[in-house]
Amino acid sequence: MNNMLSSSQIKSIKNLQNKKFRREYNLFVAEGPRLVHDITQSWLEVTDIFFTPAWSPATRMEGVRYFQIGSKEMERISGLTTPSEVLALVRIPSHTIEFDALFGDDLTLILDDIQDPGNLGTIIRLADWFGIEKIICTAGTADAYSPKVVQATMGSIARVTLAYYDAANIIAKLSAMDVPVYGTYLDGESIFRSDLKQNGVIILGNEGNGISKEFEQVVKHRLTIPSFVKHDKGSQSLNVATAAAIVCAEFRRRKIGS
Amino acid sequence: MNNMLSSSQIKSIKNLQNKKFRREYNLFVAEGPRLVHDITQSWLEVTDIFFTPAWSPATRMEGVRYFQIGSKEMERISGLTTPSEVLALVRIPSHTIEFDALFGDDLTLILDDIQDPGNLGTIIRLADWFGIEKIICTAGTADAYSPKVVQATMGSIARVTLAYYDAANIIAKLSAMDVPVYGTYLDGESIFRSDLKQNGVIILGNEGNGISKEFEQVVKHRLTIPSFVKHDKGSQSLNVATAAAIVCAEFRRRKIGS
Repeated sequence: MNNMLSSSQIKSIKNLQNKKFRREYNLFVAEGPRLVHDITQSWLEVTDIFFTPAWSPATRMEGVRYFQIGSKEMERISGLTTPSEVLALVRIPSHTIEFDALFGDDLTLILDDIQDPGNLGTIIRLADWFGIEKIICTAGTADAYSPKVVQATMGSIARVTLAYYDAANIIAKLSAMDVPVYGTYLDGESIFRSDLKQNGVIILGNEGNGISKEFEQVVKHRLTIPSFVKHDKGSQSLNVATAAAIVCAEFRRRKIGS
Repeated sequence: MNNMLSSSQIKSIKNLQNKKFRREYNLFVAEGPRLVHDITQSWLEVTDIFFTPAWSPATRMEGVRYFQIGSKEMERISGLTTPSEVLALVRIPSHTIEFDALFGDDLTLILDDIQDPGNLGTIIRLADWFGIEKIICTAGTADAYSPKVVQATMGSIARVTLAYYDAANIIAKLSAMDVPVYGTYLDGESIFRSDLKQNGVIILGNEGNGISKEFEQVVKHRLTIPSFVKHDKGSQSLNVATAAAIVCAEFRRRKIGS
């Protein structure tokens, strides 16, 4: 039997497409059976699941409200061009990372004002692949709980620990600690020839401006990905998510020692 | 002094947002000073440049028509949300790649039905970075001359040789040649431990389905990018452009022998 959603319920859910309301309600939206499955398997707290008859929950989880709705209603609450059969509301986690324990035991990524939601989603997904569990974002980085990012992570949002801090706080912390801090630059030492520590901190810079002057002060190792162009025409660069992939892969390759 | 564009001129330019018309006119659109600069420096043939007073051509190239227009007119012909100060019409190249010389002398990428324009643009850009000049696309791959792809390549579209063929033709050619053919899979030999030849052909598969059954028959080396996840929850995978970046970087790292 279908529930009827009230227009105020529909409005509340649609509001979650907007960062202001996500912060106010402390909720984000996840859509699609695979993503919802991955999230229910994680430590994230699901509050509501809206589904059409095409989907059925394997087991109903305690503390979750389930609403069977029609596909017309799904269209009204979905943020996707092609709505799927299930939409979940998920509590935005407030990770209780001890600031003192942030760095130094395993690889950590720091995102310095990454702007593009697609890039952010891709970076979260590849961090998950490479077992990098801590991602620290500056306050100026795109919202990881926006629908575009959540969908682009393909479930990885449920498996990484992600927290936002003011850049100044992160920099102060890094300055006070003796951890290897790496930054990616167009000039620097070839990553393939650099000494890479598995307890390092990798800073990834903004799409247009790269790593900020403030963060640059704490970078101890300037890494670069060598280019193999055979001509000097044009102005090559790598997308930040592409660079992140290559850097993370190289760190992990060294770990397994091949 | 400003030219006035006729409404049929405006319509023709806007039509180029659409693949059908790009094929009919054999033209594509490039926007923004950096992209237009990179294209004018390449072997691509520019036919028309539309610019506002904010832009001025360093030297006027022979055979190119220049139109100074107002920013209102730029808004009418631009495909960008925020129009820039220059828009060029560029002839779609018909690369005269000898099919016989396609494979075997340096790395070649084969894109097997890559669907997402962002992924395609990212792959073209990273191929350029790594000096991989030949990109062969199946007919089912997204159009590399669509505005989204052209803009995402950040000028790299002007520096790679890219051609479309029917998958069956490419497969027949590969079957008849003794070249190392690599494919990326979720299972396979770790790319970090595999023998990688610099004259190889790397097949990248469709976002949802991976490498097709037909192409699989010619794959001689199944490569995988090892995952470092510490738990078995969820269903990790890497985005195809991310995987392409790691694979290309690893091939090139071997080349420089570090």
